[in-house]
Amino acid sequence: MVTSHVFIATSLDGFIAREDGDIGWLLERDDPAEDHGYDAFIDDKDVVVMGRGTYESMRDVTPWPYTRPVVVLSATLKQAGQPTGPRVRFTDAAPSQVMQDLETEGVRRVYVDGGRVIQSFLRAGLIADMVITTVPVLLGQGRRLFDSLPGDIALVHETTRSFPSGLVQSRYIIPA
Amino acid sequence: MVTSHVFIATSLDGFIAREDGDIGWLLERDDPAEDHGYDAFIDDKDVVVMGRGTYESMRDVTPWPYTRPVVVLSATLKQAGQPTGPRVRFTDAAPSQVMQDLETEGVRRVYVDGGRVIQSFLRAGLIADMVITTVPVLLGQGRRLFDSLPGDIALVHETTRSFPSGLVQSRYIIPA
Repeated sequence: MVTSHVFIATSLDGFIAREDGDIGWLLERDDPAEDHGYDAFIDDKDVVVMGRGTYESMRDVTPWPYTRPVVVLSATLKQAGQPTGPRVRFTDAAPSQVMQDLETEGVRRVYVDGGRVIQSFLRAGLIADMVITTVPVLLGQGRRLFDSLPGDIALVHETTRSFPSGLVQSRYIIPA
Repeated sequence: MVTSHVFIATSLDGFIAREDGDIGWLLERDDPAEDHGYDAFIDDKDVVVMGRGTYESMRDVTPWPYTRPVVVLSATLKQAGQPTGPRVRFTDAAPSQVMQDLETEGVRRVYVDGGRVIQSFLRAGLIADMVITTVPVLLGQGRRLFDSLPGDIALVHETTRSFPSGLVQSRYIIPA
């Protein structure tokens, strides 16, 4: 069975980027000497699923930071045609359909990245667990990690650790 | 010098109550056998400052849960007259004026409670530190702990601990 997993950083007031997509406030507090577990997280993931916002903010990053095939959920990009790189494809399918398609392809574990896509996967009940790293800053405005939901989602807290940089990382499981 | 301090619980998506003020989602996850540090926190506070929303949601709680004098920031309540109880008073003063007045009275440490008042104290640069307890649930909507700010507020993470119930509690200092 295919499952999807979140690994993301947020300000203490719940923003993953400023309104214009800027994440400088995050990068300047990220101590490269600290291992926040991203490599271990990505190691057993087969595919990354993201939205247009995340894709467009990462598209010109060199070197391309994703070591796994990337699926971009965007009707806009899909209509404009597929990208040239072999490791990225666009789809206009709904989250549950995307997951079914990936399962058919033999994909087992999916990294879901970006606020809007995480929100739509949460609303569809498709997220298995979330690693959330809280950055010690209040931004006051920006793009939120979480948005409205049709109902409560109960989480099971698994573990929390903090780092000398002030980052606090918690892992939550969403019971099926 | 008088300083003000926050001790509050929030859902993982940043809500301190549902839209109608309900905190049942919090109470049902609060294990009374766990000591989350409220007694130790309140022990060295002289006064509680809160807004009308918090006051009206607590007004009819029996027994009255606050062991310290309470100042309620509300022009509406102030106009309607002072309350009958000796341990509560209403004021229409701005946060910085309230703090000056309390300092004049000899107050040293203030517990600031309620989302709206915490937000106005944060915007005025009046919060010294915050103990934030994160409850493992996503509500999707409600009354937010944090709101818009005139600029970033950098925090210093001091300590984090988690509890068997799944609550995660972090303490942040706001450098003066």
